[in-house]
Amino acid sequence: MNEATGGDATTAPSLVASPQMVDEVAHELQALLSAGNYDAVKALLQPVQPVDIAEAIGSLPRTLQALGFRLLSKDEAIEVYEYLDPAVQQSLLDKLRSNEVLELVEEMSPDDRVRLFDELPAKVVRRLFTQLSASERRITAQLLGYEQETAGRLMTTEFIDLKEFHTAAQALAIVRQRAPDTETIYSLYVTDGERHLTGILSLRDLVTADPADPIGDVMTRDVVSVRTDTDQEEVARAIQRYDFLAVPVVDLEQRLVGIVTVDDVIDVIEQEATRDLYAAGAVQAGDEDDYFQSNLFIVARRRVVWLAVLVVANGLTTEVIAKNDVVLQQVVLLAAFIPLLIGTGGNVGAQSSTVVIRGLSTQRIQALGPMKAVFREAMAGALLGLLMLLLVVPFAWWRGEGPLVGAAVGISLMAITTLAATAGAALPLLFDRMGLDPALMSAPFITTATDVAGVLIYLRTAAWLLQHMNS
Amino acid sequence: MNEATGGDATTAPSLVASPQMVDEVAHELQALLSAGNYDAVKALLQPVQPVDIAEAIGSLPRTLQALGFRLLSKDEAIEVYEYLDPAVQQSLLDKLRSNEVLELVEEMSPDDRVRLFDELPAKVVRRLFTQLSASERRITAQLLGYEQETAGRLMTTEFIDLKEFHTAAQALAIVRQRAPDTETIYSLYVTDGERHLTGILSLRDLVTADPADPIGDVMTRDVVSVRTDTDQEEVARAIQRYDFLAVPVVDLEQRLVGIVTVDDVIDVIEQEATRDLYAAGAVQAGDEDDYFQSNLFIVARRRVVWLAVLVVANGLTTEVIAKNDVVLQQVVLLAAFIPLLIGTGGNVGAQSSTVVIRGLSTQRIQALGPMKAVFREAMAGALLGLLMLLLVVPFAWWRGEGPLVGAAVGISLMAITTLAATAGAALPLLFDRMGLDPALMSAPFITTATDVAGVLIYLRTAAWLLQHMNS
Repeated sequence: MNEATGGDATTAPSLVASPQMVDEVAHELQALLSAGNYDAVKALLQPVQPVDIAEAIGSLPRTLQALGFRLLSKDEAIEVYEYLDPAVQQSLLDKLRSNEVLELVEEMSPDDRVRLFDELPAKVVRRLFTQLSASERRITAQLLGYEQETAGRLMTTEFIDLKEFHTAAQALAIVRQRAPDTETIYSLYVTDGERHLTGILSLRDLVTADPADPIGDVMTRDVVSVRTDTDQEEVARAIQRYDFLAVPVVDLEQRLVGIVTVDDVIDVIEQEATRDLYAAGAVQAGDEDDYFQSNLFIVARRRVVWLAVLVVANGLTTEVIAKNDVVLQQVVLLAAFIPLLIGTGGNVGAQSSTVVIRGLSTQRIQALGPMKAVFREAMAGALLGLLMLLLVVPFAWWRGEGPLVGAAVGISLMAITTLAATAGAALPLLFDRMGLDPALMSAPFITTATDVAGVLIYLRTAAWLLQHMNS
Repeated sequence: MNEATGGDATTAPSLVASPQMVDEVAHELQALLSAGNYDAVKALLQPVQPVDIAEAIGSLPRTLQALGFRLLSKDEAIEVYEYLDPAVQQSLLDKLRSNEVLELVEEMSPDDRVRLFDELPAKVVRRLFTQLSASERRITAQLLGYEQETAGRLMTTEFIDLKEFHTAAQALAIVRQRAPDTETIYSLYVTDGERHLTGILSLRDLVTADPADPIGDVMTRDVVSVRTDTDQEEVARAIQRYDFLAVPVVDLEQRLVGIVTVDDVIDVIEQEATRDLYAAGAVQAGDEDDYFQSNLFIVARRRVVWLAVLVVANGLTTEVIAKNDVVLQQVVLLAAFIPLLIGTGGNVGAQSSTVVIRGLSTQRIQALGPMKAVFREAMAGALLGLLMLLLVVPFAWWRGEGPLVGAAVGISLMAITTLAATAGAALPLLFDRMGLDPALMSAPFITTATDVAGVLIYLRTAAWLLQHMNS
């Protein structure tokens, strides 16, 4: 573990905390708490990062969690609390004395408090809410008024705003004074008398400016901002695109009401990536954090709906085959190629839908234009079908002991891959255009849709060939 | 567009630049350049962010790119150049005068220069390399010596290091002086005489400290650092987990050699998410940026290998069916349920592999342990199979006009979903344990593997039932 406990100045810094290291801390913490050795607990946790302390406390038996938590200093406790799992947060609220709870909730940063309130039962929220100080209550009510997954919900209201007439020296004094209770002091905001945002500057600009310069001359007026109702994914893209540490949030009247910082945005990017990935695996996205903690029935519930939809769609494929069983009765070996054909069609369709959905997410497809993207994917599908023919047709000819199966497989393979690639590209784009989530048209759905069409094409082609090659 | 061109202090700040806004700038830029109205170009680009200028220049006809680029101020040019697509970067190198090129490459930050050199032809790199100043050449050679996708490649060597005996006031003076040529001034590093990292502090700590305090008392000795050979994904996880703006990079002797900043890490997180998604869609990941710009044959090449592997695996399914065609000859309707069974198995397997692969990426599965995860997924698969039975067996009974098809479909469905979920969870974990990328065992491969096993189970079950129900 981290051994930088002072004294020896050449102590090696710790490497990234691994799950094993956090595990060790958790075990030692439990042993020390059980033994009642509280000074040793403090010494143990002193060099540990808050998020790691939160994980260690979260892994303690419920009975020891409040005990461990109380041994933290007040500032540390607030920071650690914000990193705890919602379930542990709730259980601590029940166990701590009400004045301890109140102090904790009062001191949390407003955005973290709102995230906590989202998780707590309404009754608890109402009680805590009435006990907050007037100013914190007002801010909390304001943030809770914004829709989930918007800039308004993601932002913090703790930022430093300056006036254009401040000198750089005055501004630096304001920064010093307000540093303890703001989320960041590196991005600074300039507002006019009506709280309209008129410019921004960085702490770097400020410390390198002449102390006598007015802020109005130091700041830049070219500000990228978002609105309270901007979708969180768009907020994330802005910070990522411009390499910002924070982006200002304005209300409908262009008044500065908050800022979103880069650390919150990383979590949004990760959450959106998980959603796209889960959609690609036909898993309904929920609160990813607790997935591996949730029980089997919650796990099953988040999968059963999509699975049932896909099974019903698969039933259509069954119907198509059943309705065309005359062909199979004539040449039963045709059935052996059904999985290969629909599997390949599904894979080609999945490839197309994957790149298109990702292109929409990362906003790169816009440069190409949707019609061109679909056309390109259709061509790619045809080309890939052609290449697969070289592998599949000789095999089908040999396995089918004659040209019939080979011809039927070859012709329908080309048609299926072209169709699958076209649908794989077009359906997500269509969903996006209609304002629906394009990820709903990800691999499993494209694959299943391709199955029905693919089997129909294959069996009709085989029937036609049977008729004409026999005559 | 952004109208904050000075004068009017209450001008509304621009919202996030949309692709349309960048398009407009690009069009106006082209018109003004063609008309030779260079002052208007400067006025147009003045309020635009560097990354947006880079996109606008990138979308110009090749003949105008160098012209537009030359109109930027020197500082702006360096920033814009770093955001250009590699192809545009290369073409500009050919068109600019050699002293312009040299100045540009000399002034780039070392990490961006190394990324550029990775893309350029070896001949061009050698020429540029010999023309660099000795100090920049040394840094560039050092960075090129680290393996790709490690902290060493991602880091910048431009950071501010202080000594423990500096006072806060002295340190602030150093920060002011070095601010223009370091990537960040917000994270500050303290080293001893042998360049060993002994502590860190933030600019926030520094501006709020007593000016007379020695840095040794202000800094924290509990440092999370990474090594030059730490994988970039692990670096990203560290910054994300601890909400850092930067993380220090030390060499094997624990000497501080660079830092990785949060903006680079966001791109890594996005790149890794794209890789996982592409793997889930059987697309080989490349340099995602140019995917929608690359031609059809590059697109096809990045898909054909996986597709061919999957087709060959699908051929095994064909073989299994062909070898068991006696069963299908007796009851041809059994064939109608093959797509439904293997489709459902594939979907259940895809769900399991998706959550396990994502859990490995986000390092959440470690809390549960691999054996437990596989067991849980197997149980989920059995449960989901049971639920699907309720839909599928009545349908199969009716469609198959008797109990045989219903029984064969029902029994094998349970077996297939359980097997698929187990394989979907176990194979990525096994790959991870063997040091291979778990994403190689994503949906398409699990699905195809499930196909072979599923068809075999189904047809053998049907054969057994045929034998025993007829006797």
